[in-house]
Amino acid sequence: MNSVTAKNYNFSNVKFLSAMQLSEHYALYVRYIDCINKVNEDISYSNLSDCSSNYSSMRSSQKSKTFCFDAIKLHELYFENLTGNNTRICGSSEKVIDEVFGSYDSFLEKFKCVAMSMRGWVLFCYDRYQDEFYIYGQDSHDDGVMLYAEPLIVLDVYEHAYMIDYGINRKLYIDVFFENLDFKVVNERLNKLNK
Amino acid sequence: MNSVTAKNYNFSNVKFLSAMQLSEHYALYVRYIDCINKVNEDISYSNLSDCSSNYSSMRSSQKSKTFCFDAIKLHELYFENLTGNNTRICGSSEKVIDEVFGSYDSFLEKFKCVAMSMRGWVLFCYDRYQDEFYIYGQDSHDDGVMLYAEPLIVLDVYEHAYMIDYGINRKLYIDVFFENLDFKVVNERLNKLNK
Amino acid sequence: MNSVTAKNYNFSNVKFLSAMQLSEHYALYVRYIDCINKVNEDISYSNLSDCSSNYSSMRSSQKSKTFCFDAIKLHELYFENLTGNNTRICGSSEKVIDEVFGSYDSFLEKFKCVAMSMRGWVLFCYDRYQDEFYIYGQDSHDDGVMLYAEPLIVLDVYEHAYMIDYGINRKLYIDVFFENLDFKVVNERLNKLNK
Amino acid sequence: MNSVTAKNYNFSNVKFLSAMQLSEHYALYVRYIDCINKVNEDISYSNLSDCSSNYSSMRSSQKSKTFCFDAIKLHELYFENLTGNNTRICGSSEKVIDEVFGSYDSFLEKFKCVAMSMRGWVLFCYDRYQDEFYIYGQDSHDDGVMLYAEPLIVLDVYEHAYMIDYGINRKLYIDVFFENLDFKVVNERLNKLNK
Repeated sequence: MNSVTAKNYNFSNVKFLSAMQLSEHYALYVRYIDCINKVNEDISYSNLSDCSSNYSSMRSSQKSKTFCFDAIKLHELYFENLTGNNTRICGSSEKVIDEVFGSYDSFLEKFKCVAMSMRGWVLFCYDRYQDEFYIYGQDSHDDGVMLYAEPLIVLDVYEHAYMIDYGINRKLYIDVFFENLDFKVVNERLNKLNK
Repeated sequence: MNSVTAKNYNFSNVKFLSAMQLSEHYALYVRYIDCINKVNEDISYSNLSDCSSNYSSMRSSQKSKTFCFDAIKLHELYFENLTGNNTRICGSSEKVIDEVFGSYDSFLEKFKCVAMSMRGWVLFCYDRYQDEFYIYGQDSHDDGVMLYAEPLIVLDVYEHAYMIDYGINRKLYIDVFFENLDFKVVNERLNKLNK
Repeated sequence: MNSVTAKNYNFSNVKFLSAMQLSEHYALYVRYIDCINKVNEDISYSNLSDCSSNYSSMRSSQKSKTFCFDAIKLHELYFENLTGNNTRICGSSEKVIDEVFGSYDSFLEKFKCVAMSMRGWVLFCYDRYQDEFYIYGQDSHDDGVMLYAEPLIVLDVYEHAYMIDYGINRKLYIDVFFENLDFKVVNERLNKLNK
Repeated sequence: MNSVTAKNYNFSNVKFLSAMQLSEHYALYVRYIDCINKVNEDISYSNLSDCSSNYSSMRSSQKSKTFCFDAIKLHELYFENLTGNNTRICGSSEKVIDEVFGSYDSFLEKFKCVAMSMRGWVLFCYDRYQDEFYIYGQDSHDDGVMLYAEPLIVLDVYEHAYMIDYGINRKLYIDVFFENLDFKVVNERLNKLNK
């Protein structure tokens, strides 16, 4: 396994999220980086005679591998599309969203409802297996992940993403997310799909 | 959402798994197909004012969407690579496995240990995000799924996959899986990666 | 921690469940006993500087402690009330069930529906905290456990409980459970509640 | 089912946790009360022909029943033992902790390690089934609950419990918890055990 290193993000144009909220969130992300490097090293040198689904070191490493690796990917996708720039929908994402949901407003209403209904993450994705676009939600980094999903819009709804700034008012935080969502980033993800 | 239909599989050359075991397993898969079609219809017509992460119909649909959709994809990948044909490793999968694990025997030893350590699925996959190959395991259809994983070898280790034939002897079942694994299917998956 | 030892059960009067099904199930239970003894020893000697919620040996031991200990308790309760004797409802359980559900038939209908809706266990319990009786279900040994529940009737609906005999026909297995449920055991549990 | 109502707690002597942190936490608790009342009503009138472990209204109600009911019990136990009064260990809890862990310091070291290793709750409990005392942890309200546990000391380590005041510095929050733990409450729980 290659060693993983934390990426840097520029939050200078992000609106309505405090430097404290964003820096604590980023510090959490760095912990997942530390985790995956430790896990991958342990898996490389794992004792292949200790392999039980009740209790074993292989089990422990595997559980943390998925948890931390999913956490890293999701956080990078989230930070990347949370810039405060290019916040007006346009281009290929506008086209796709209009086709699938009728309008951006109709998309927003559904996305926000899913975001209030789950405990971890909400994604608008392209499903490579099924060749369709849809919104789906996860309850944690590794619980409820959709296989073959290609993430396009990624929103963190863990309490750690908003509690410093908004307490338990998740609704307000979700609105704030869409004031910061970078559609240039979303369009680049869409254009890279080479469907 | 497009309606999903069950695919058919030819198990006539599968060795050491009984017709009963295979047909009950296939019947389970059909239930997931029924599930996803019901869920997708409910989501289309969902009440967007009932959106709570404690208890809501949107939450219920979302949980089952991921569970059943992941179950369908994983079962199709499993049935597809479980043919009893082309069971000798060769071609591109042999090349990749030698590169990553040193030898097929070394790969087998690690894959089997992960398969004994998890409660749902084991996959050898290509990670699109990280550009690497690795083995990982899941505890259920939707718990522990790796985002961006492109499945190459897929083994079901749920109790339903082997209990009729092997009781709680999962070890024997895992050996039997490798007597049936179709490397032509695995190589086709590898070749389609367009990395 | 005290060392835990497997208890013995007499299945000689159990109807419609094969010796194979029952002995494989019992062998699974013995594995949980081995697990908890290993876990408890590890926790006693645990390294208290390795304490991370992402990945640590303490985390791994704690996860398996609850999983295996709940598995042991639930299996013992299940085996204990699955004797094939005293299968006609009577005494204190009849009184309580009539009070809470109107009739045994009405209880059965609800219990069976919960048993078809969950993935691990179904319990009729007395809730010590809330001072009420109700049916509830779990998705695994440790997922969905009700704090302060005092189990009175315990049914295992994991696939391992019935697949050898009934394939995926869980409905039939649930009926068979009630042909074997020992109400003398249930009444003893009720009488011990010292509410 | 009886209707459940929120209890009130006096946080006036709680140190190092802000009124904002405590009141947002309490508001979350009230949401679980709303949840359980809605769930219990739905279960009373549930459609007993819609009973699937893949997707059904019974499944949805059952999942939320355990989640919200466990959340309520755990939050009440937590708020109750977080008063800022009687924070010096004494009486029956001191006796038990000395017996089981050798000293309070040794108990604290272990409890804090478990509290850093789990994602939801940490409990010091008496196990009614096994007749022993131990510390254990949960990853969420309903994941990792120990059957037959009688909670004595209850600490919430969800991010919502400390993030407003301490960001991701959970270590500091755990120290603060022990500056507020009410041993009079703990001793009353111990004395009520009627072992």
